[in-house]
Amino acid sequence: MAVVIDLSTRSRLAAIVGEAHLLSDPGALDAYGVDALGKGHAADLVVLPGTTLEIAAIARLCNDQRIPLVVRGAGTGYTGGAVPTSGGVVLSMERLNRILEIDETNLLAVVEPNVITGDLQRAVEAVGLFYPPDPASLDRSSIGGNVAECAGGPRAFKYGTTKHYVLALEAVLPTGEIVRTGSKAVKNVVGYDLTHLLVGSEGTLAIITKITLRLVPKPPAQATLLATFDSIQGAVDAVSALIARRVVPAAVELIDKDSLDAVHAHTGEAIVPAGTTAVLIVESDGTPAAVEEEIARVEEACRATGAAAVTRAATTADRHRIWAVRRQVSLALNAAELRKVNHDVVVPRGRVPQLFAVVAALKQEYRLRIASFGHAGDGNIHVNLMVDASDVEELARAKQAERILFERVVALEGSISGEHGIGFAKKPYIALELSADEIALMKRVKAAFDPNDILNPGKIFP
Amino acid sequence: MAVVIDLSTRSRLAAIVGEAHLLSDPGALDAYGVDALGKGHAADLVVLPGTTLEIAAIARLCNDQRIPLVVRGAGTGYTGGAVPTSGGVVLSMERLNRILEIDETNLLAVVEPNVITGDLQRAVEAVGLFYPPDPASLDRSSIGGNVAECAGGPRAFKYGTTKHYVLALEAVLPTGEIVRTGSKAVKNVVGYDLTHLLVGSEGTLAIITKITLRLVPKPPAQATLLATFDSIQGAVDAVSALIARRVVPAAVELIDKDSLDAVHAHTGEAIVPAGTTAVLIVESDGTPAAVEEEIARVEEACRATGAAAVTRAATTADRHRIWAVRRQVSLALNAAELRKVNHDVVVPRGRVPQLFAVVAALKQEYRLRIASFGHAGDGNIHVNLMVDASDVEELARAKQAERILFERVVALEGSISGEHGIGFAKKPYIALELSADEIALMKRVKAAFDPNDILNPGKIFP
Repeated sequence: MAVVIDLSTRSRLAAIVGEAHLLSDPGALDAYGVDALGKGHAADLVVLPGTTLEIAAIARLCNDQRIPLVVRGAGTGYTGGAVPTSGGVVLSMERLNRILEIDETNLLAVVEPNVITGDLQRAVEAVGLFYPPDPASLDRSSIGGNVAECAGGPRAFKYGTTKHYVLALEAVLPTGEIVRTGSKAVKNVVGYDLTHLLVGSEGTLAIITKITLRLVPKPPAQATLLATFDSIQGAVDAVSALIARRVVPAAVELIDKDSLDAVHAHTGEAIVPAGTTAVLIVESDGTPAAVEEEIARVEEACRATGAAAVTRAATTADRHRIWAVRRQVSLALNAAELRKVNHDVVVPRGRVPQLFAVVAALKQEYRLRIASFGHAGDGNIHVNLMVDASDVEELARAKQAERILFERVVALEGSISGEHGIGFAKKPYIALELSADEIALMKRVKAAFDPNDILNPGKIFP
Repeated sequence: MAVVIDLSTRSRLAAIVGEAHLLSDPGALDAYGVDALGKGHAADLVVLPGTTLEIAAIARLCNDQRIPLVVRGAGTGYTGGAVPTSGGVVLSMERLNRILEIDETNLLAVVEPNVITGDLQRAVEAVGLFYPPDPASLDRSSIGGNVAECAGGPRAFKYGTTKHYVLALEAVLPTGEIVRTGSKAVKNVVGYDLTHLLVGSEGTLAIITKITLRLVPKPPAQATLLATFDSIQGAVDAVSALIARRVVPAAVELIDKDSLDAVHAHTGEAIVPAGTTAVLIVESDGTPAAVEEEIARVEEACRATGAAAVTRAATTADRHRIWAVRRQVSLALNAAELRKVNHDVVVPRGRVPQLFAVVAALKQEYRLRIASFGHAGDGNIHVNLMVDASDVEELARAKQAERILFERVVALEGSISGEHGIGFAKKPYIALELSADEIALMKRVKAAFDPNDILNPGKIFP
């Protein structure tokens, strides 16, 4: 079901961005029709605008012609947020990739949406500043995509997610108006907070063209430790012990046995001692004295809850080795022969033990391999159903387990997505968490921005 | 121009909340028709609901009858947000005043809207937790009002404002539906972030009936210092020096000479040495070692920029004495014979020097007394025009100066309100900061929540 873009529309788009910035060969149309989820619908035309004014003209044209318009950043999302569901124009932001300003006096940065998050982090750290959000994809994902999905990452435990750093946005409405939300001031209560409505709106409300981000001072010191446990319970108890001791490290990451086994299978080497059933990686940051004090309390909490071994990084190389363990998990699960169905569920932070109990029950009830790891301090655990894509019966069991997982997470007062968004991948499940009245209200908000439903149609709502 | 509430509507309201919870004597109608701004319109009826279901029934009835419905918390706002502009029903939340839950495992609290903010703070601090937002009114204002206005306070410099602590809301739409936004999980990207759209929406979108707040561990130590300067420039330079040194104390408060003089005139005693033209109060919090390290850097920054004297609190009593200076400023200005016209303007944090230059120019150009003090670290300075209410000519000059102040703040990329909101007091000025397209978009969002414009009509938008 392709969308017809007639020749006159095509030539008007060419007049806006220049013929060189239209892509219509089948390879490109297919490539821009998938993201990290690996599903989607081919684009009918890919447009690469160079300015906000061009984007406004494209939006007006698509709105007039009722052509679906899908904004794309780096295409690293897991829920299909950046790809068409039924064709149309893909608006790739790849040419808008400049850091416009790093303002050391006002502690902020102004960037175009396709700056790679890791590049921004390195640029601000070079002047002693810090942009904390650190999604696993940070060396490939764009800040615009991070804003559209409200990306998180390990450091969200202490520092919060992307939304806590967005001060102001420039955006183009689907009807073509250019609007500015928020300001460079850290406090601003003039009118409605449209900035935070746009953050996490998955490209369905407006096209974000410029982003003003709050920065914080770069913490002068870090300390990192890795603790191994011979039961998952020990590791989650350690997390509870941290919270009870009122310690807030920068990151608290947990890796379960199935994940460790995947690394073993993938690399051929055991990255942790035999008998290890769970790993906790904890990082503290701040002034040297504060970090020393905090990491000692973390170590004490891990030992008190039965850690088999606690290793502290003594050097930067040690620190990188510890974080490599975490990174290898993602790589190994992605490289596995099995299909990884990744769910970024989240529960109130003290209920991680109950979440792991849910996962254990699902493994048994549905005879599934499930590898879980993630941001234990936040209650945000990536639950990866590892399925044989050729086994129809197993796929069916996984589909059932998925729904049960979501139901039980909602019963724990959690949420079916903590970081990845809904896109089209999770939209069949949104009604588990939101009432009909809440969905109807959100649809009215959508209509206030996009009366003709041209912007990223077919996403979020069933 | 009162709103007619017929006898049948009145008896239906009585049936919902009970006759004892309707107020209609003229004294009450007038009292519920003003807030701290001292202006407004009398209510035609005051309703004191006891439950969310009652509020839903009241909203449906008012929506059906097109009766304006104005939500009121503690009535401490400065912009008329909680009072009618043309009569109708005032919905006072005073009976919804319970702390429902302090959840130490999940680091959160669930409260009804009319809990007094200071009471909540004391309750969570008793178990080693911390709710940072600290508006000056915290011992009188309600948490529901703080959420509706997105209240700030001195600690916003380090900790952010109310919006950074609201995880979830229960709210009643003007059309009577009960909705829940957000969740107890600290990460949640399911659907649009209606939680943060409601925070700061000044009671115009929905009636907030339950609030889930994120808590943090109570910092174990504090250090407080007061520095005096013989020029305002020295004090603002000290703030810039802190930012350049990448220090983020919990609070950085600045008080100018006009404010200090007001205290002198009010109390008859000089609270700072003669010749003091500006005072900076800085507080650090965190672990004892971190606090010691940070306050030493603050002291060094103050001395480097020419502080005449720097006094560090050695005891808790000292600390209270330092903060009493700040509190006395507000009291003295409120008690002055002159009318205080308080504007909570905000600029990017590095532009406080330019903001003080604007104030100095206004004093001269418009021959006005202007006392300024506030949250210098945030760029959020309370600029108080002190006018003789009986001097018509001075009132006219103040009115002109007010507009020029707002224009210059916007030219500095700041905002006309950092904490108090727009209400009806500032709505003539909102177009200085927001474009016609932005206002039109916000009005469409308003209509998505409140199609008949019954909820707090006449606010925010011109």
